[in-house]
This record gives sequence, structure tokens and C-alpha cells, in this order.
Amino acid sequence: MSDKAFQDYYPDKFNQCYGCGSHNPHGHQIKSRWDGDQSVANFTPEAYHTAVPGFVYGGLIASLIDCHSTGTAAAATYKAQGRAMDSEPGLRFVTASLHVDYLAPTPIDAQLEIRATVEELTEKKVVVVSRVLANGTVCAKGKVVAARMPSSMEKLID
Amino acid sequence: MSDKAFQDYYPDKFNQCYGCGSHNPHGHQIKSRWDGDQSVANFTPEAYHTAVPGFVYGGLIASLIDCHSTGTAAAATYKAQGRAMDSEPGLRFVTASLHVDYLAPTPIDAQLEIRATVEELTEKKVVVVSRVLANGTVCAKGKVVAARMPSSMEKLID
Repeated sequence: MSDKAFQDYYPDKFNQCYGCGSHNPHGHQIKSRWDGDQSVANFTPEAYHTAVPGFVYGGLIASLIDCHSTGTAAAATYKAQGRAMDSEPGLRFVTASLHVDYLAPTPIDAQLEIRATVEELTEKKVVVVSRVLANGTVCAKGKVVAARMPSSMEKLID
Repeated sequence: MSDKAFQDYYPDKFNQCYGCGSHNPHGHQIKSRWDGDQSVANFTPEAYHTAVPGFVYGGLIASLIDCHSTGTAAAATYKAQGRAMDSEPGLRFVTASLHVDYLAPTPIDAQLEIRATVEELTEKKVVVVSRVLANGTVCAKGKVVAARMPSSMEKLID
């Protein structure tokens, strides 16, 4: 896996996300990287990220899937375009839809692994499917439809 | 709307959730109440709950939908059983699946309203559909399948 994460290439003005922004000191700052054709991120929950004692709350799992998937969508698009992640124009994706199936209670004392693959990639959207594993067990499965950030939204931020 | 929220009736041992637990000082502590046949919760994002500047990150929206829906599932089940929320046995639901469609960027400087209805209620599961509104605009729609907490999981917590 490469040292630099997908999120480290996000344009500065789009790098404040609570889930994955490198410039959000309050947030999760997840880091996603290629591992062959899959993308992977690891995250260790805090004790207060609880659902019921001993288990991770579902909103965190949804957040990790969401941000890892939009990051994967960006990285896969750079790759499909045959260019480096630090080339222009910088790409940023937003979530059109998020689906999570919770398969097993997720232990809070384990490091979580989020592992994703690209199911579909077009000019406008990328569909990313993922699994969240704890101690080798798949605790949740995710599917995210990520869309290129609309230029109308980009302009609001410029 | 009644003063006491659904979450205020959760059994103490199941009331630590980061999204909705009354006993989680780090968490969102959302409060859901009936408003006629709909359930409603309000939440004001913090400045750091950002996706890109000016807008709420999707993981928070997913979390609010998730917790409001499992709370609604519990409240609707008490209602269907014709008993008060402080009667025994105490009910707690977990999320089997969560789906969110993000329809519009959600402004971070608005109070959010999460408004839900029960689409299906059986002995084992409750399907809850919801909308997240900001300044009167529907920014996201949610669908949660909530399942009665398995007794195997309850035992782990006892």
C-alpha cells in the first residue's frame, strides 16, 4: 500500500469533512489506500462510540463506509483517467445514496477494517461496495453511490 | 408533543448510544417524540460536523436517521402493544439496515428536523421511513429496518 492516503490529496478547500478531512481536528480523519484492486481503511473506535455496552454504534459504521467510499470513488476516477491524484482538476465526490446492512454486532475494542471495491464507474457516478470487518468477521456491508460534486456546490465553496 | 422523549424511557443499561443515549455525555443525545402519527426530533449541528464548508457531513445525517428510527420503532411497538413506554419488558431495537438518499446539500447553520413514519410493524421488525429537513427543505430521506434486540445480545450486556 502507498504511504499517502486518498484523503491527503483532497483539495484543501474540500478537506474539512468530519469523517475524512485532514483539516478537521474534531473528526475521524480516516485514511484510505489501495490494496491491489481493493481500497482499505482502518479505524479504532473510541470508548464513547458505543451503541450498547461493548458494541459500536451504527452511525459510526455508516460514516466510515460513507467517507471511505467517496474517497475510493475519487481515487478510482483518477485511476480510470490515467492520472495522478495530485493532478488537476482535483476531484471530490459527494454521496448520492448510502446503504448499510448490519450483519453482526461490531465489538468496540477491535480495530475496524473497511474494505471496498468499485462496482461501477461512469463519468457522473461511482458505485462502491464495502465490508466492515472486526477481528476477521464481517460486521456490516455497505453500498454507496458517489456523485461528482456538482459545479453549483463547488461554486458555493470557492 | 409530550415532554418526555422516547430515549428517556430506554432501560439504563441500553442508554449509552453515541447517537441517542441519555447517558452518553460525548454523544448527540437526540430526543424523539410523537407529533400525531409522525415522530420528530430536532438537532442543531456543530460547526465541525461539516462535509465541505457550509454543509453537514453525511455520516451525521445517517446517524440521526438511524437513532431516530430505532427510537420510533420502540415507541411504535409499545403503542401497538397498548402499553406505556415505562412498562416492562423494556424494548430496545437495533438497526438491521439503513438506507439514506441525499437529495440536497444540508446547510450546517440550520436546525435539522428528522420526521418519521412507521411503514411496517411486525413482532420482529419495524420499518421506519423518514425525512431530514433544513429550513423547510427535504435534504435527505431515510429508510431503516429496525429489529428487536436479539436475546443473545441482551445477555451479553446483562
